[in-house]
Amino acid sequence: MPTIDGQRVVADLKRLAEFGRYKTGVHRPTYSPVDVESRHWLADKFREAGLDTVIDGIGNVIGRNPRVRRRLLVGSHSETQPYGGWLDGSLGVIYGLELARVFDGDAACVIEVAAWADEEGHYGNYLGSRSFTDALPEEEIDQTRGRDDGTPLREALERAGFAGRPRERVDPSRYIGYLEAHIEQGDTLDTAGLRIGVVETIVGIWNYRVALIGEQNHAGTTRMVRRRDAGVAMVRLATRIHDRFPEIAGPRTVWTIGRMLLEPNAPSVVPGRAEMQVQFRDADIDRLAAIEKALHDLVSEADRAGPCACEIEAIARTEPRPMDPGFQEQIEAAAERHAPGMHMRLPSAAGHDAAVLSYRMPSGMMFIPSLRGISHHWSEDTREEDIMLGAQVFADAAERILRSAR
Amino acid sequence: MPTIDGQRVVADLKRLAEFGRYKTGVHRPTYSPVDVESRHWLADKFREAGLDTVIDGIGNVIGRNPRVRRRLLVGSHSETQPYGGWLDGSLGVIYGLELARVFDGDAACVIEVAAWADEEGHYGNYLGSRSFTDALPEEEIDQTRGRDDGTPLREALERAGFAGRPRERVDPSRYIGYLEAHIEQGDTLDTAGLRIGVVETIVGIWNYRVALIGEQNHAGTTRMVRRRDAGVAMVRLATRIHDRFPEIAGPRTVWTIGRMLLEPNAPSVVPGRAEMQVQFRDADIDRLAAIEKALHDLVSEADRAGPCACEIEAIARTEPRPMDPGFQEQIEAAAERHAPGMHMRLPSAAGHDAAVLSYRMPSGMMFIPSLRGISHHWSEDTREEDIMLGAQVFADAAERILRSAR
Repeated sequence: MPTIDGQRVVADLKRLAEFGRYKTGVHRPTYSPVDVESRHWLADKFREAGLDTVIDGIGNVIGRNPRVRRRLLVGSHSETQPYGGWLDGSLGVIYGLELARVFDGDAACVIEVAAWADEEGHYGNYLGSRSFTDALPEEEIDQTRGRDDGTPLREALERAGFAGRPRERVDPSRYIGYLEAHIEQGDTLDTAGLRIGVVETIVGIWNYRVALIGEQNHAGTTRMVRRRDAGVAMVRLATRIHDRFPEIAGPRTVWTIGRMLLEPNAPSVVPGRAEMQVQFRDADIDRLAAIEKALHDLVSEADRAGPCACEIEAIARTEPRPMDPGFQEQIEAAAERHAPGMHMRLPSAAGHDAAVLSYRMPSGMMFIPSLRGISHHWSEDTREEDIMLGAQVFADAAERILRSAR
Repeated sequence: MPTIDGQRVVADLKRLAEFGRYKTGVHRPTYSPVDVESRHWLADKFREAGLDTVIDGIGNVIGRNPRVRRRLLVGSHSETQPYGGWLDGSLGVIYGLELARVFDGDAACVIEVAAWADEEGHYGNYLGSRSFTDALPEEEIDQTRGRDDGTPLREALERAGFAGRPRERVDPSRYIGYLEAHIEQGDTLDTAGLRIGVVETIVGIWNYRVALIGEQNHAGTTRMVRRRDAGVAMVRLATRIHDRFPEIAGPRTVWTIGRMLLEPNAPSVVPGRAEMQVQFRDADIDRLAAIEKALHDLVSEADRAGPCACEIEAIARTEPRPMDPGFQEQIEAAAERHAPGMHMRLPSAAGHDAAVLSYRMPSGMMFIPSLRGISHHWSEDTREEDIMLGAQVFADAAERILRSAR
């Protein structure tokens, strides 16, 4: 059984968190100067662990293993959300690095490590893992701009020094599969007092833009009976959505109206147009379809009832991605060995690179607890003993997967 | 009876609309280069009509009448809303100019004319008429910035060439009162096929900021039961407001939630804070108070029910301002003479400089129809025959007010 060096894992995570430190968290947007620095630092660490390492044309740091056996690919992303947490994706990258070290002398266990670029979507979600799996066309790179300041992605890659480099592509026949560790981000493990989560499925995320079209008017002189107030139409429809969805939701379904816009958004003007984004997530595609139907019904009903027109457009619909059942069993067996009775199976309610990789190879994910479920905030944290235990379970699970693939 | 020159009135309005023409409307924000140009043009026209004219330190164009009798002050504002209509306040300014001309030889009827600055609030509502009536302290001028680009008011006045000039102040003993003409902005006259409106009251406008305070969280990993979603709290409260207000509203009460903000307003983040502005208008102060009470009750109820805290703050509460009953009778008599049976009394649902002046002297307002009630939009319009008829009724009403004040 491989034995990880827990202190070394924690020290590496703390060193990586120096790139863009903000309070107890990290501000390290993709392709920012500190992100670029941190990728070079990671590449050096991968090389020290014996890997042939490149930073490719999209910013992925990939540590290739020169040995000829089939490999287990291990990793996560290394940039953070704005003023985000110090663990998040960094955890899975450093776990991967540690695995490369502990299996370095083991001829039967070949590890490659990846730090994917821009899982967090500063430019576009999962840019790195999509590039690696042939799911990121050049035209999309041409058209993509930064969500914060509109910088063209090509310009950001140029400034980062990654432009012109080849993009590494997957050859699935080289791999047994892909394994990723991450903090849970929710509070399921923390609330239950458990230490390891075995991910069954990465939820599907379905996202819609709903527009209400009324008539802009003077807020004094336009009598109530004559108004077609797009703001009123939006709040009434949003309320009906929040009333209806619980009736069809499962125990882990979540839905969010996180973005709303009124036009012209002035206190003395009757809004002529309103827009909201409705998002829901579930691991069960039939339930996602049922919720979508309910949403379409509510929109049609509002449109028919008037006085505002109501339109809906799907923006994104990612499929729920089940993780490999064999991988789940091996992670669970490893967890039971090191933390008997302190683990559970659960879905991932956030998206991950593992969902992208799962289209090309068997994939698995392991969670460690997030204190109070805080995520995407600088105060995100996990106990050091859970970080160290997680690394050991992860290494054991990797070995089980590698040896059972003989 | 004075006889106005209807063609001259229409020609002056069309000339004034050249300053900042946009499609069939006008874009002439306060203190913009075209606004400054138009004020110099108006000053010249006032001088041609025999008035001692100044542009004062806040941009008011005031045509003083050198004769010694008590005067009737007549006017309105001359800037426009962004891409607004060609008539709006300009109508009342040019009517004032026409009155100065037709009464020029009449020793019994002394007219002074004002084109107030910034009734439309590009910098602050009613700046000009508030300055004239001693209701605009220097400290407010120091602190005010443009609502569009944040330019300090002092800087805008400097650039306009008005800084350093004295601000003209009212001496109420000089005046019989103040008379203002305006387009109705609503559709009451147009829908009823009437041609003149006699304003009974300028409504009170009560404006509140309502804040909902929840907890910002990840839209995937935060289970529904744990959420304190400020966006949900806002749409539910807004819906209750729209359900409750009709039960206590009068036939002419209007209410509007024209501005809404979510934080951080991102599709995958549970909103941690939300804010909306709730405004209502009525001519009856008891009804305004009843609506305010209902609003406070709904906010307290939402706050108690949780899970989000809910706070309310009054931003502005202007009193309903009744117009002088004698002035109303004179306007009505003049309307009955020139358009028998084609007039009505009605409240003004928009604010006007006449509300500000009414604190210092008897004030009256007359409306002409707005086609389809369109206002604050470049497509605002009124039939030429209504513009000309309105000028004649207005002149007749002014003479009746002046002669009855003997």
